[in-house]
Amino acid sequence: MDNFIFQNPTRLLFGRGMIARLAGEIPAGKKIMLTFGGGSVKKNGVYDQVVAALKGRDCVEFWGIEPNPKIETLRRAIELGKQEKVDFLLAVGGGSVIDGTKLIGGGLLYDGDAWDLVKQGSFTETVPVASVLTLPATGSEMNYNGVISCLETREKYAFVSKHPVFSILDPEATFTLPLHQISCGLADTFVHVMEQYMTCPVGQSRLMDRWAEGILMSLVEIAPEIIALSRAEAEAGGTLSEEDRQKKYDLMADFMLNATMGLNGFIAMGVRQDWATHMIGHEITALTGLTHGETLAIVLPALLRELLPQKRGKLLQYGERVWGVSAGTLDNRALTAIQHTEDFFRSIGLRTRLTECMGEAEAEALADEIARRFTERGVAFGEDANVDGPLARAILERAK
Amino acid sequence: MDNFIFQNPTRLLFGRGMIARLAGEIPAGKKIMLTFGGGSVKKNGVYDQVVAALKGRDCVEFWGIEPNPKIETLRRAIELGKQEKVDFLLAVGGGSVIDGTKLIGGGLLYDGDAWDLVKQGSFTETVPVASVLTLPATGSEMNYNGVISCLETREKYAFVSKHPVFSILDPEATFTLPLHQISCGLADTFVHVMEQYMTCPVGQSRLMDRWAEGILMSLVEIAPEIIALSRAEAEAGGTLSEEDRQKKYDLMADFMLNATMGLNGFIAMGVRQDWATHMIGHEITALTGLTHGETLAIVLPALLRELLPQKRGKLLQYGERVWGVSAGTLDNRALTAIQHTEDFFRSIGLRTRLTECMGEAEAEALADEIARRFTERGVAFGEDANVDGPLARAILERAK
Repeated sequence: MDNFIFQNPTRLLFGRGMIARLAGEIPAGKKIMLTFGGGSVKKNGVYDQVVAALKGRDCVEFWGIEPNPKIETLRRAIELGKQEKVDFLLAVGGGSVIDGTKLIGGGLLYDGDAWDLVKQGSFTETVPVASVLTLPATGSEMNYNGVISCLETREKYAFVSKHPVFSILDPEATFTLPLHQISCGLADTFVHVMEQYMTCPVGQSRLMDRWAEGILMSLVEIAPEIIALSRAEAEAGGTLSEEDRQKKYDLMADFMLNATMGLNGFIAMGVRQDWATHMIGHEITALTGLTHGETLAIVLPALLRELLPQKRGKLLQYGERVWGVSAGTLDNRALTAIQHTEDFFRSIGLRTRLTECMGEAEAEALADEIARRFTERGVAFGEDANVDGPLARAILERAK
Repeated sequence: MDNFIFQNPTRLLFGRGMIARLAGEIPAGKKIMLTFGGGSVKKNGVYDQVVAALKGRDCVEFWGIEPNPKIETLRRAIELGKQEKVDFLLAVGGGSVIDGTKLIGGGLLYDGDAWDLVKQGSFTETVPVASVLTLPATGSEMNYNGVISCLETREKYAFVSKHPVFSILDPEATFTLPLHQISCGLADTFVHVMEQYMTCPVGQSRLMDRWAEGILMSLVEIAPEIIALSRAEAEAGGTLSEEDRQKKYDLMADFMLNATMGLNGFIAMGVRQDWATHMIGHEITALTGLTHGETLAIVLPALLRELLPQKRGKLLQYGERVWGVSAGTLDNRALTAIQHTEDFFRSIGLRTRLTECMGEAEAEALADEIARRFTERGVAFGEDANVDGPLARAILERAK
């Protein structure tokens, strides 16, 4: 096991009715900025619950943090926050709203342009951020990461800041999510875990392996049930029996907990990490606007096939423990495990090939541009730091 | 899943050489009290490393916190700490030293007798406590619990305080542990996990089940390797080849991480808990002085047999996932899973029956006294709060 330092101070309040506790979690006298996405929280009742919980508190609202939050939007939020002397931020939404709010937190205490904070990759001076989560996926509710895009330059970068001081996770807040968003969230969670697990051969940390596999197995178990229930609900005109409503609660509670635990450091203690899939995926989103979860479903299987020799040991363990693959030659078993992974993404309704999303020529040009960017920046990702421009090009070729 | 609130702010510094970072973790200007057990840290080099790391800092030492730390000892530490105006506590040792130090932390800010703090069950006013762990077992290095005994009244109670601000876990600090202490630590960790897992039937939280099973499977995997290596080392007169030394490091690193994660809240989110085995075990220790880990190895199999109908669903899942038991009638499978559990404890050198530790009449009297105490106190433990005096009596009868 590698040496490590771990600390995650975020306070989680999990379950039905927890939004009502909001006021008690935010110190008195704070000027609170509530940040939101496009308005789904007005449809699912979360906005009303938040407003009721914060009645009598000094709040200002900022709306319109979009998926893949844009620095152009966040600059306006920071301007408003400075005018209003905001000293507490409450993000109400999914990972994009929380990520954007983390940058607002830094921007409020920074005199220059907040894009500097993104480009420098980390900052620790920040107004406290908390969240009410409505979309399980990114883990942002319990980690110190954020990812911000720049429309102007078509760039997308990750940064490191501080953990949210608290996050409220009420599974009922996810009840009105469209199926596609749930699928993208399932894929995002699955790939977060794979980035921290599918690296060196067996033996780094038995426990971290088991915990990563535990999340993967849970996702594989709940995904078809969530999809089936969601379809049944849609067919019944959006209604559910009391029993099915409880079933949905239990499933979404499981999903929510898996998503949060998938990227909060708990499965990363003392182990190598990969993250090449995410780095390539971010470029695809920056250049084409494709949803984050979907880019991951496209890149991961291709990356695993390209890096099979390097990852063979762990692929065999993964195949056996998560998918029950134990027969065949070593390479066949590894390939079968990868095929199960791609099939899983397809089973939840996601595309897994670039050419399903764009023309062949466009996919070719995209691969060229991503390879060019990696080479120009002199970067290389993955546990062996070998996924550079040419290797990213080869992975994207396999992903066509 | 049940609603829950989770927060664990302890900072973990894990790995070789981490003790050298001590000074940077303790705020400047603090009057530090170092607390120790009986002196093993002078033999294994940990004491020297701590002293070197804190060179130039204002420290006072308190020695002699015993296994099952006694209030009589801790009162003396509190007296010394008050005299010396101590405002930071660093526990260097195993769970007993850390538990005792948590009570010292509360006692330093309390005017009355610290036994009041134990009896009242919880306190939050405390001098900050940190730890350098030398014995993986109790999880005290990353939780807010402590257990203190009173010699005079032969009582032993648990209390809740605050998490250590940081804990340093260097697997090399465990290298000189006697095999019996390692075995007791393995059993303690195993049973901590069972207390949080072996409750209601399947379905509370898929992830928490998987994570609990992940710890159990890791322990089952590493225990025979640790025992074998430890015996080989003893036979070779206490020496190890460089390769075996690295193997020991990896095994003890795995064990250390498992022990910490086994009782820090990470596997307890949204799930019911039991703790009846611990409550009965504490009484056995208080009345007979038997080591904590050994009391658990005696009580758990008996408790599972007595409560088989109530725990059947989870026993079947446990049997299948942890021990590969999938054939036979339901009751046979459950009984086989319990037998595997008892066999596991015996395989690491622990006794699993009361009459291996005392005479039949003494075991009988012990069962009577524990039943009497539970009844007198009006307490009942377990996920269904049904382990009262008579049921504890029945469990101890099976444990004979």
